[in-house]
Amino acid sequence: MASTHRRWVFVRRPEGMPTGAEFRLEEVPTPDPDPGQILVRTRWISVDPYMRGRMRAGPSYAPPWEVGEVPRGGAVGEVVASRRPGFAPGDVVVGTWGWEEMARLDGHGLTRWPWPDLSPTLGLGMLGMPGLTAYFGLFEVGRPRPGDTVVVSAAAGAVGSVVGQLARLAGCRAVGIAGSAEKVAFVRDVLRFDAAVSYQDPQWTAALEAACPDGVDVYFDNVGGSVTEAVMDRLALRARVVVCGQIARYNQEGPAPVTRDWLWQTIAKRIRVEGFLVGDFALRHAEALERLAAWVRSGRLVGRETVVEGFERVPEALLGLFRGTNVGKQLVRVAGS
Amino acid sequence: MASTHRRWVFVRRPEGMPTGAEFRLEEVPTPDPDPGQILVRTRWISVDPYMRGRMRAGPSYAPPWEVGEVPRGGAVGEVVASRRPGFAPGDVVVGTWGWEEMARLDGHGLTRWPWPDLSPTLGLGMLGMPGLTAYFGLFEVGRPRPGDTVVVSAAAGAVGSVVGQLARLAGCRAVGIAGSAEKVAFVRDVLRFDAAVSYQDPQWTAALEAACPDGVDVYFDNVGGSVTEAVMDRLALRARVVVCGQIARYNQEGPAPVTRDWLWQTIAKRIRVEGFLVGDFALRHAEALERLAAWVRSGRLVGRETVVEGFERVPEALLGLFRGTNVGKQLVRVAGS
Repeated sequence: MASTHRRWVFVRRPEGMPTGAEFRLEEVPTPDPDPGQILVRTRWISVDPYMRGRMRAGPSYAPPWEVGEVPRGGAVGEVVASRRPGFAPGDVVVGTWGWEEMARLDGHGLTRWPWPDLSPTLGLGMLGMPGLTAYFGLFEVGRPRPGDTVVVSAAAGAVGSVVGQLARLAGCRAVGIAGSAEKVAFVRDVLRFDAAVSYQDPQWTAALEAACPDGVDVYFDNVGGSVTEAVMDRLALRARVVVCGQIARYNQEGPAPVTRDWLWQTIAKRIRVEGFLVGDFALRHAEALERLAAWVRSGRLVGRETVVEGFERVPEALLGLFRGTNVGKQLVRVAGS
Repeated sequence: MASTHRRWVFVRRPEGMPTGAEFRLEEVPTPDPDPGQILVRTRWISVDPYMRGRMRAGPSYAPPWEVGEVPRGGAVGEVVASRRPGFAPGDVVVGTWGWEEMARLDGHGLTRWPWPDLSPTLGLGMLGMPGLTAYFGLFEVGRPRPGDTVVVSAAAGAVGSVVGQLARLAGCRAVGIAGSAEKVAFVRDVLRFDAAVSYQDPQWTAALEAACPDGVDVYFDNVGGSVTEAVMDRLALRARVVVCGQIARYNQEGPAPVTRDWLWQTIAKRIRVEGFLVGDFALRHAEALERLAAWVRSGRLVGRETVVEGFERVPEALLGLFRGTNVGKQLVRVAGS
């Protein structure tokens, strides 16, 4: 066990798009675990769009990262020392802890990875928060019916890629919107959505229209902004809009520009627009994870991971989410994984 | 029975705010009823905001009024001749027919007024479409819980005035938004909402804030536009927005200006925004009307009618809705009522 390790500290709140200067790398002594604690070597760190919200001061659904503290997020690690019953050296654990190479943890919110036949990095993606977000957002908020056309934005992302596949499992037609030709090919050819369009294509709204000849029954929105406005124009009778993320807005300060008011059309079309958080369904996470794991095992649910190598690149990986550099789940591999 | 009567014909579609030139009054021979038909003398005509939508071409939830035809809407009349079983001269009927002094009808959608102790004009207001809209919109879409703060826009109107009173019956705090000091006094002193504010008051958003110290749990929206944007800024956790009407938008052509994008906040607050039409609940109208009638009889549901005198003033009464000249239900009394 090294006597020192590196960690990231959040040193300033960004205005608008983060630059990376919000974080500082430092080296600190590695503590020994006290009774009831374990020491974990971090193997993988998850970066997720919701973290942009944690960079802001003030209350939100996730507590803000405090300046001067180590940012926390999803991670996979290996127990190297344990003074806590139920954890032993060599155990692979998934949970939420700080961006540091070695973490002393009390076991709270920590799970021993339960499926030896499946990669524990899935616990940060399809079998973790993003997969659960897709599952509950689509099934409980979107409530798709067989035959529905389900459109998902950020379709190549960690959540969107699961949403479209679950929609197909539910007997729906899945249409993805993504930000590049490469992502569109992934969504169509690997994830097997029925159709996919790139909003970078100048003709993309015509392509969306062609992909949804009967309109959009469920729109699972991860992005907001102009992409969402284009989908809103094509909602079908009794459409449901699942508001999951608004990444197009996360780096904007002040009121966001909008070009249309779509509220009026909710009446004649009886549209329902509803936001949710995955934590609202916490009591049912275990049930959903068993189903998701079964679909992964049977090959009905597939994904991709985009891996950035090296602990020193965690902020870079996070910033990449806002430029759309990831396909599928964005992870950082910490040295030695 | 007169051998001729007057009727209104819809002669042109408006662009923007109607002027009255959309309608032409003409005199026509009064027909005799054929077998299966009745002849009705129109006593009261209802004008309603949704009629603006019927002035537009193209499909909507209500069929458009066709140029060259007689506009149709809610009315109360008296049977003067009947060749249809179940209807006799002297019967008071409520239903939907054309803007004409004498109407030959086949009985479809026509109801003999069932409550001799209650004014049949209530069948155009609290015990008709507006009352049912309030009932199902609030109870089925808004789903208020005791203790909720329910805000309603156009609170002095035919729908809004019922919404707030029903909210109080459901154990909620009712806050009304209206467009004049007179309407605010009516909402507060006659309808007995807990609070009311006028959006004409420059300080009105501060007054709204003071009236809703814990935020807005249910917003029943009849107006849209800037009033709605102000309420959207004050929604509470798990708020429900019932989209019933958007009168601020009805006379705008093309995209409506908006100043904010509130979609992002639906996530953290788990807001549900949902449109509806009263016709969706048609199978349950009778049940709701019995309850509403009981509340009217017991004095727990009160209202006001604004009456314009004279058949020749039907278009004027309709246009008044868009200028907010009515308090409560706007009716036209046809000569001889």
